[in-house]
Amino acid sequence: MRYAIGVEYDGGGFRGWQRLSKPGEPDEATVQGVLETALSSVADARIDTVCAGRTDAGVHAQCQVAHFDSEAGRDLRAWTLGATTRLPPAVSVTWCRPVADDFSARFSAVARRYRYRILNRRVRPALARQWLSWHWRPLQAEAMHHAAQALIGEHDFGAFRSAECEATHGRRELQRIAVDRDGDVVTIDVQANAFLHHMVRNIVGSLLEVGAGARPGDWIAELLASRDRRLAGPTAPASGLVFVGPLYPAMHGLPAEVSLD
Amino acid sequence: MRYAIGVEYDGGGFRGWQRLSKPGEPDEATVQGVLETALSSVADARIDTVCAGRTDAGVHAQCQVAHFDSEAGRDLRAWTLGATTRLPPAVSVTWCRPVADDFSARFSAVARRYRYRILNRRVRPALARQWLSWHWRPLQAEAMHHAAQALIGEHDFGAFRSAECEATHGRRELQRIAVDRDGDVVTIDVQANAFLHHMVRNIVGSLLEVGAGARPGDWIAELLASRDRRLAGPTAPASGLVFVGPLYPAMHGLPAEVSLD
Repeated sequence: MRYAIGVEYDGGGFRGWQRLSKPGEPDEATVQGVLETALSSVADARIDTVCAGRTDAGVHAQCQVAHFDSEAGRDLRAWTLGATTRLPPAVSVTWCRPVADDFSARFSAVARRYRYRILNRRVRPALARQWLSWHWRPLQAEAMHHAAQALIGEHDFGAFRSAECEATHGRRELQRIAVDRDGDVVTIDVQANAFLHHMVRNIVGSLLEVGAGARPGDWIAELLASRDRRLAGPTAPASGLVFVGPLYPAMHGLPAEVSLD
Repeated sequence: MRYAIGVEYDGGGFRGWQRLSKPGEPDEATVQGVLETALSSVADARIDTVCAGRTDAGVHAQCQVAHFDSEAGRDLRAWTLGATTRLPPAVSVTWCRPVADDFSARFSAVARRYRYRILNRRVRPALARQWLSWHWRPLQAEAMHHAAQALIGEHDFGAFRSAECEATHGRRELQRIAVDRDGDVVTIDVQANAFLHHMVRNIVGSLLEVGAGARPGDWIAELLASRDRRLAGPTAPASGLVFVGPLYPAMHGLPAEVSLD
């Protein structure tokens, strides 16, 4: 029996999603580690998970999706409420659905959405500082939005890819990017079919150069065309980044927040 | 020379605003304690502060306002950025303005605004859990909003006052209360000329009884008329409460977020 679950987490205290220990061994440093321990406790048998987007150290998730197989016959309440009581306060399982055996949280996802939030004022954040990054120089959000539109479409995003990226190629389809200001907070929403390692944070780091007036708007298009990581802006901090969640075709019957119309 | 400052804080790690040590002695357990230490360091002389709303242990502030007197001649940058670098990460001074000698952060304020946020779903919050309380039974936000309107006006709020409240009388003018749902989050905004001890959290605790269907809507009006604290709902947890800030007459020249039109 295969199940899909929604997982919400505060990534601040974790070394990312991906388990660092061997499968089945305890690992309290990663989200996958604590989640598999909790699910295995519910099942009273070892559970391995596969997720939609392996977030880095410090990155948060509003609705990570993972799948796992179990013949333990537990009900959906046990996989959500039961697992959550076995998880640290920074992680909760928000829903669970039975899915077809060929569903994959990773390969069935047709898009991933990320949100990056920047507090843009002279003084550092105190309230909600765990979910924000901070940029004290005034940012022109409209200029950032305009420049970012050059990224839309299918491209080789090599310029925004970290040196540690293990993907076989750099081609991704960026479907939407929007930069918006609400008071002191600048929000960058990005959706693509998939992302390279550090791709969102490297795009944000480069857009910050445009927003602060250090680079012209058409620099983003130049960077993209160069495919040269050495030319792009610095990687923006992890704390401002939230994995909003993946999107799946409606046929999988997942909750509305991760399901295409 | 008198100054007004805006103070933002995450109250989770503090025993409230009010200093617990003697004036001039170090106190790392309270917001006032760490703030006066930081300001005194900037001034190189002892600074005492008076605030608009003495928040309880665990309650946050978006824009607390305080005033203090100093002849140190520091510029506004020193009182904001300089003080903030001397504060723990959970507190920052967001602005500073010189004010008239008869300005009082406490007595010049004509209104105070609080916001209470409740995550209303089966599973406890993980992301942003520091700024939310949690109620798993479904809440009818519209019923809560409707019932709450009975509180508007000048009344004796004795039914919503804690046993430790030191105010000389219970009469307060509640100017606005609105309950609204956005997805899983129910937000309660309250504005009054001033508040009694635990008044917002006791009102919220009683509205939760109405929202969950345990009490009829007109119970709120009955409670108010009774002035009997023993009849009201339990005090809602501190973590969901943010002191949005006070409001002052425009003549004081304070920033728009705390100034009447």
